[in-house]
Amino acid sequence: MAPPEEGSDVLVLPDPPRGPLHAARARASFCWKELALFLEGEDVLRFKNAVFSALESDPLFAHPRGSDLSVEKYQELNFLRCKRIFEYDFLPMEDVLGIPWRIRALVECLGMYDWSLATKFFLHLLTFGSTIYISGSERHFKYIPKIFSLEIFGCFALTELSHGSNTKAIRTTAHYDPTTEEFILHSPDFESAKFWVGNMGKTATHTVLFAQLYTPGGQCHGLHPFVVQIRDPKTLLPMPGVMVGDIGKKLGQNGLDNGFALFHKVRIPRQDLLNRMGDVTPEGAYVTSFKDVRQRFGASLGSLSTGRVSIVGMAVTSLKLAVSIALRFSATRRQFGPTGEEEVPVLEYQMQQWRLLPYLAATYALDHFSKSLFLDMGKLQHGLLGNDRSATQAELGREIHALASAGKSLASWTAQRGIQECREACGGHGYLAVNRLGELRNDSDPNCTYEGDNNVLLQQTSNYLLSLLGRRGPGGPRVESPLKTVDFLESYPDILGRRFTGSSPEDCWDSSAPRGSRDRLEVSFCWPRGPLSVVQEAPGSDATIPMSAPPGFSPLKPSPVVN
Amino acid sequence: MAPPEEGSDVLVLPDPPRGPLHAARARASFCWKELALFLEGEDVLRFKNAVFSALESDPLFAHPRGSDLSVEKYQELNFLRCKRIFEYDFLPMEDVLGIPWRIRALVECLGMYDWSLATKFFLHLLTFGSTIYISGSERHFKYIPKIFSLEIFGCFALTELSHGSNTKAIRTTAHYDPTTEEFILHSPDFESAKFWVGNMGKTATHTVLFAQLYTPGGQCHGLHPFVVQIRDPKTLLPMPGVMVGDIGKKLGQNGLDNGFALFHKVRIPRQDLLNRMGDVTPEGAYVTSFKDVRQRFGASLGSLSTGRVSIVGMAVTSLKLAVSIALRFSATRRQFGPTGEEEVPVLEYQMQQWRLLPYLAATYALDHFSKSLFLDMGKLQHGLLGNDRSATQAELGREIHALASAGKSLASWTAQRGIQECREACGGHGYLAVNRLGELRNDSDPNCTYEGDNNVLLQQTSNYLLSLLGRRGPGGPRVESPLKTVDFLESYPDILGRRFTGSSPEDCWDSSAPRGSRDRLEVSFCWPRGPLSVVQEAPGSDATIPMSAPPGFSPLKPSPVVN
Repeated sequence: MAPPEEGSDVLVLPDPPRGPLHAARARASFCWKELALFLEGEDVLRFKNAVFSALESDPLFAHPRGSDLSVEKYQELNFLRCKRIFEYDFLPMEDVLGIPWRIRALVECLGMYDWSLATKFFLHLLTFGSTIYISGSERHFKYIPKIFSLEIFGCFALTELSHGSNTKAIRTTAHYDPTTEEFILHSPDFESAKFWVGNMGKTATHTVLFAQLYTPGGQCHGLHPFVVQIRDPKTLLPMPGVMVGDIGKKLGQNGLDNGFALFHKVRIPRQDLLNRMGDVTPEGAYVTSFKDVRQRFGASLGSLSTGRVSIVGMAVTSLKLAVSIALRFSATRRQFGPTGEEEVPVLEYQMQQWRLLPYLAATYALDHFSKSLFLDMGKLQHGLLGNDRSATQAELGREIHALASAGKSLASWTAQRGIQECREACGGHGYLAVNRLGELRNDSDPNCTYEGDNNVLLQQTSNYLLSLLGRRGPGGPRVESPLKTVDFLESYPDILGRRFTGSSPEDCWDSSAPRGSRDRLEVSFCWPRGPLSVVQEAPGSDATIPMSAPPGFSPLKPSPVVN
Repeated sequence: MAPPEEGSDVLVLPDPPRGPLHAARARASFCWKELALFLEGEDVLRFKNAVFSALESDPLFAHPRGSDLSVEKYQELNFLRCKRIFEYDFLPMEDVLGIPWRIRALVECLGMYDWSLATKFFLHLLTFGSTIYISGSERHFKYIPKIFSLEIFGCFALTELSHGSNTKAIRTTAHYDPTTEEFILHSPDFESAKFWVGNMGKTATHTVLFAQLYTPGGQCHGLHPFVVQIRDPKTLLPMPGVMVGDIGKKLGQNGLDNGFALFHKVRIPRQDLLNRMGDVTPEGAYVTSFKDVRQRFGASLGSLSTGRVSIVGMAVTSLKLAVSIALRFSATRRQFGPTGEEEVPVLEYQMQQWRLLPYLAATYALDHFSKSLFLDMGKLQHGLLGNDRSATQAELGREIHALASAGKSLASWTAQRGIQECREACGGHGYLAVNRLGELRNDSDPNCTYEGDNNVLLQQTSNYLLSLLGRRGPGGPRVESPLKTVDFLESYPDILGRRFTGSSPEDCWDSSAPRGSRDRLEVSFCWPRGPLSVVQEAPGSDATIPMSAPPGFSPLKPSPVVN
């Protein structure tokens, strides 16, 4: 790496205050500022600094973050903080569309501060907002400025009390009434109550509601999203026919008001159906530009992947924090040592290294994976918005669905277990709330569940891989995919025949050992590309993408790479 | 098993109310009442019923258990509940000494209700009380009635801010002053503050304090326990020279007031040294009946094991609750199924069984191990109190130390991971606080840390095993131990040569497969004895043991065994 321009790093990366960690830091074999600039890029670092500085100087964000408050007070404070984030205008509307890496950086900053805040912000602006933008059409764009001005506050209501994984069994109905040109939304029973909906508990005025769409005559066209007002924005009282409330305390993220809602024959205008996948004419005919249900389902997989790609990033952020806390503690906490001499920092013990360093390595690996998947997701979204119906686009959708499903499981479990290992490796002090490891673990825990149970998601990736293998064989097509992440399966008989032949500790320390050999990088599934691939794929030095792109993805700004 | 006497089980084990679980229960291939009677015995079941009935009828124990209260309010409520438990007199002084299985049963009941309550009760009565009883002598017995009447409230102060695992480096000092016949207790610096001490934060009036004992002339005799008053029992204000307070919020058990304390030249009478291991004469001479430091250390290992044996029981109790919650939910939660038919309970899926049933099995196995270790610990304590200095007693101490160290790690990790799996297997509903899985996980988490970090403890067991193996060989002694848990190592070359030769699912389902063969039960380390050994070892039908036995152990009441 080239040394950064003289003086340019001083503002972005000031030296840490000299304290008990200085001795350990002074022994580093590399320049951490160069590494940070290489990994993040100066723009991202400057942006994060700006966000953290604003939060540090604002009394609203002073400790306690809320862990000692009652749930009600914590939720109230979290809402005020969320509003303040909009006032700071870190993400003006044009930047969400034009500089989407800022979304990723802002969510990371807010998550590092408090996941309840990041999730509240994210659910309103990105889950609610981008679903309207992506699943709707021009007639829904009127909502977008209101989202940024907080005239309305949104949530995303898919899961019901009795159905999460099995979304096809969701029971909320939307019957179309051509006489008034309205949909009638209805929850047939208690078990069909929308449940777990973040922001719905106390603060949301509107929701994207998923319901089974029925046209006159009783034909069901499956789940469709609708924009529905659930509260009066001035009084926050429920709209007529809507029963809405908070679901109560959770293991973590208690600053977020997760809610439930039941609908009793609530009428909404026909136009509030988000109609990208399918629409209903004023007379009540169902129209869709997709040839069949399977194609419509395949296209909607793309939007499912968005949430999972985000979770990979959230899990990595939590792991970054936890590993930093545990390593810093371990470098200063001393226990045992040679008789009569100063005790030894626990980080010097093989046991502590064996416990923590694999999670440090996993953090770097997953961080790279997260960025790379974010870029790939951007390509997919671009195609979706451009109505790309090509076979390649469909294959890309399936591949990203498989990558995001397995990646979300891998990242969330690695973070969950890693944070727990950090907690235990810090002994009793890891159990003190002020040291944050418990909060991080509890706030990250739902990453294993929402947007799909990890075990169920792994089966989706298995299905994808097995279907590719099933088509292979003499005369069949090669195993390959647009991002080339599965191409290694073409040589799986060879891979299965390989054996690790190392016999010494040195053989095991060889970093090429887990991959079979240095020349066969292609055999690793999750880390399919070399360490510089993010930079190689970034489209030159221009960090913006066209205005027509949806929020939520971006190429990363490439950093200078020399040597 | 024989059917229990007609009608005898009606009161002890009433039928559960008929509800959604009925269908699953009706399919059981065994009688759950017989199993419960076999595992627990009627006396234990009756005792537990009495405790639960009292708590159910007492408004002080009504929900919320405290999770929605501020930490202060929760701690106050927990203290009131602890006092009420003493008022119920579930454990009169004579029963603690005479029917020690009641201690185990009561801690299980209180833990199932709320670990903060169980821990508070346990720390006062058993950790504080039994340390005075076991480590002290007749001159300290005056404290015992005051412990039962709550005239004094106690805690156990060993760990310091900077030293937990390395107890030899603990810095609090106790210098003997022969002119006044007092010890001067002193904390030389902030890092020597006692820390993490349960009950010390707000409620304890007295502590057992561990300090380095110095006699005139400056000779250090190592860590010794002292009884020290830290607060005025009427006002709860600190005693002169004592700085004491609460350490703040933790990841769990927030009903327990964990505290810190610093001592500034606090003087206590010579007699308040707990003098079983060593004493100081009025003139300042150190006297001990142990020949050397190593022997004294070996004898004190016994008391270290008590805490670890208790933790095995606590971990199993949490796992029992979590597995029950998850299995009951899974038997009623339905998701997916054949088209057009009712959905299938998730427990019917192989995946859900694969996730939960191993933890159900582990619960039974660990429960048996816990009871068996409790009995073995009883033998050890009996010998300690009888001043048994035989080689067998010493070997028993080392073996139980090794068993308790590995067993505590195994049980606490299994519970920690099992509860997490239960949480995830219940999906979003597992993340709701009201379903208790998070509280159970967070309250059980410190089991991995206190009384010794799990990883460090495993090394102690490894040391023990390696030292036995090191002595083995041609001409060396056989590998054997009083409880025969290590005797299998004698044939370790044979064991290492064995291979699993199964090739069908049926071979894997054979429950003897993990043990090598049905005829070789001896090869399993942690479960060294057959399933009936608890009963075989119980001394007949008399459930009491001599009055001279210490609290904390007992033979279990044998249940009728037929067939």
